[in-house]
Amino acid sequence: MITVQEALKIILNNSQTFGVEEIPFLESVGRVLKENIIADRDFPPFNRVSMDGIAINHRYFKQGIRDFTIEGIQAAGAENKTMNNPSNCMEVMTGAVLPINTDTVIRYEDVNIKNGIATITEDKLELGKNIHSQGKDQRQGDVLIEKNKIISAAEIGVIASVGKTLVKVSVPPKVMIVSTGDELVEVHETPSSHQIRRSNVFTLVSLLQKLNIRADISHITDKKELLNEKIAYFFKEYDVLLFSGAVSKGKFDFLPEVLDELGVNKLFHRVAQRPGKPFWYGVKDNKSVFAFPGNPISTYVNCLVYFYPWFADSIGLELKKETVILGEDFSFKPDLTYFLQVKVENIDGNKIAFPVKGNGSGDLVSLVRADGFIQLPKEKTTFKKGEILIFIRYR
Amino acid sequence: MITVQEALKIILNNSQTFGVEEIPFLESVGRVLKENIIADRDFPPFNRVSMDGIAINHRYFKQGIRDFTIEGIQAAGAENKTMNNPSNCMEVMTGAVLPINTDTVIRYEDVNIKNGIATITEDKLELGKNIHSQGKDQRQGDVLIEKNKIISAAEIGVIASVGKTLVKVSVPPKVMIVSTGDELVEVHETPSSHQIRRSNVFTLVSLLQKLNIRADISHITDKKELLNEKIAYFFKEYDVLLFSGAVSKGKFDFLPEVLDELGVNKLFHRVAQRPGKPFWYGVKDNKSVFAFPGNPISTYVNCLVYFYPWFADSIGLELKKETVILGEDFSFKPDLTYFLQVKVENIDGNKIAFPVKGNGSGDLVSLVRADGFIQLPKEKTTFKKGEILIFIRYR
Repeated sequence: MITVQEALKIILNNSQTFGVEEIPFLESVGRVLKENIIADRDFPPFNRVSMDGIAINHRYFKQGIRDFTIEGIQAAGAENKTMNNPSNCMEVMTGAVLPINTDTVIRYEDVNIKNGIATITEDKLELGKNIHSQGKDQRQGDVLIEKNKIISAAEIGVIASVGKTLVKVSVPPKVMIVSTGDELVEVHETPSSHQIRRSNVFTLVSLLQKLNIRADISHITDKKELLNEKIAYFFKEYDVLLFSGAVSKGKFDFLPEVLDELGVNKLFHRVAQRPGKPFWYGVKDNKSVFAFPGNPISTYVNCLVYFYPWFADSIGLELKKETVILGEDFSFKPDLTYFLQVKVENIDGNKIAFPVKGNGSGDLVSLVRADGFIQLPKEKTTFKKGEILIFIRYR
Repeated sequence: MITVQEALKIILNNSQTFGVEEIPFLESVGRVLKENIIADRDFPPFNRVSMDGIAINHRYFKQGIRDFTIEGIQAAGAENKTMNNPSNCMEVMTGAVLPINTDTVIRYEDVNIKNGIATITEDKLELGKNIHSQGKDQRQGDVLIEKNKIISAAEIGVIASVGKTLVKVSVPPKVMIVSTGDELVEVHETPSSHQIRRSNVFTLVSLLQKLNIRADISHITDKKELLNEKIAYFFKEYDVLLFSGAVSKGKFDFLPEVLDELGVNKLFHRVAQRPGKPFWYGVKDNKSVFAFPGNPISTYVNCLVYFYPWFADSIGLELKKETVILGEDFSFKPDLTYFLQVKVENIDGNKIAFPVKGNGSGDLVSLVRADGFIQLPKEKTTFKKGEILIFIRYR
């Protein structure tokens, strides 16, 4: 049985690319940028007034002059004006171009205006004050945002500023999520006493939605011919297949057999971990098949531990490892990597992880009480309060 | 001039409610749940087999018997079967109902099967092993998810399990975002040398999108009559108005005057903070008007510091304060609360905040290099490496 690390390595060796598309910039939040965003002009593009007030020529202030005749107004959005008499001043508005022949701005708070004369009330005045000078932030041609970044509100502002109505982002894969298991009924149905409602496919849809992937869903009953036929069709229509269930040792766990018949190259089956051990992974024509065990927590944790990094690698996104501090002693004996559900408290800049008690991989309600999983290495059995561990967050 | 704390208190005193709507559960990710989710039956609803293998009556194992004749199969999704001869065994599949007259499951890994006889290879066997017993996780009628929680993938699974095809969530407010300023041109236009492209409205749209609010946008040039007319209309159509610009001391900053004329009750103007000081806030007929200063960072930080908590309070969501550890010494002299842009590194379970150098509130590109703002209290001027500070995250 291979380890979590080995399994992940195999999966990352099989990441794919799905190309690049151009979309309206305002729809790109959460997507991964696939082009550098370049400054089309200087930032700011002109010597920009950054306070409402008056603009003067600092030389006259230095000579001791405090009274300045107001020669005119430079409004934001107006063409650049020239102050004709250099010992005068101009009223200037935030966002305006600095008038020609002026070099310093004094805000209204530090000025008295009476009968067309502005009197500066401050005794100290720095040359160039309250001017956001052309190119101070960035020069034309500078890279403002590097590609492969997730686009957030901060990037949207910059993308708008440089006039990119369309922006290049990675295309998400077409994903089919399939549940199996004859015990499952639809959400709107009332299950008989031996049945339960489908839930894993919807959990997976939501986990993928977080990655901006819209997935389709399907259910196949535990019949070999039906599995065979439907999966063959899915391979034609989708880039990735995700399964939940039918990969364990049960009499009706036909999935590995069917995938083999369909020519999918099994790269591993079973990983030394809990929950989620019977995970099956294979590839056909560069298309990945993630067949997760059907217990709710198994499906959930495997999607986070394997599919998320595979997707990030596929679209060129670097995932940062997050760590947390264990909040209480914990022990786990079996020779398996254990993914322990935890609630993480933010305490004084530290992230402290407290184990959430659950009743095994079938206890889906326990997910509601946790924020993620910590990864307990298989080489150890006891973990002490204060230890630093890898955290796999889902909220 | 009021403090950040006073301003926030006033704003939270004016939170509103926008009601509750029922939507398809799979569309509810990121929304705030407005009903308790109750267990419609026990979790699990029956004594559920949790491993593929055989089910026996433990009494016979205890008597030393290791060979059990296979009487039949209990598949997942099949009605509950009865084992007629209590010294026999039944093959059982994960997810199946435990057969009547059995009480313990042995996984296939610990059994040899030959000629219809299953021989247990283990010497120790706990009564009730590999059975996820009825009601062990939750009892019928238990609250599985409490209302006012943000719905994530974990909640979606539980909501599906209890058959809630529709789920009650809070209705987001109808928001209009208005930019002002004659220097602004559209994103697709090429600005003249004294102009820049609009960006703040798009940043605000994206920040609100993160809260699952879809906002409309508009631009009004710096003309009083136009402002008056358009804002009067917006009050009819929207629950909240967000402005960017025209609230400072400029000659064309008509917004406070116009809002006054329209009967909006000004609750404050100017807050002892940087950036974002000229922030104006008022209320008309319970409708909030957030008029943010037009500098990009001012608009951005004020949306996070004021609109976000107002919205959370309005829909009944409890926001948790996040803290970080300052990564290097920093000083800020003015008697203002300072919102400092920082990049946060996750180091050994600690969140360390490193200041991001920017050129003031106009430097929107600096937002791309940061993850959020730390809030430096106005009472202090020097902040030492290692201090714990409030963190306002935007990515």
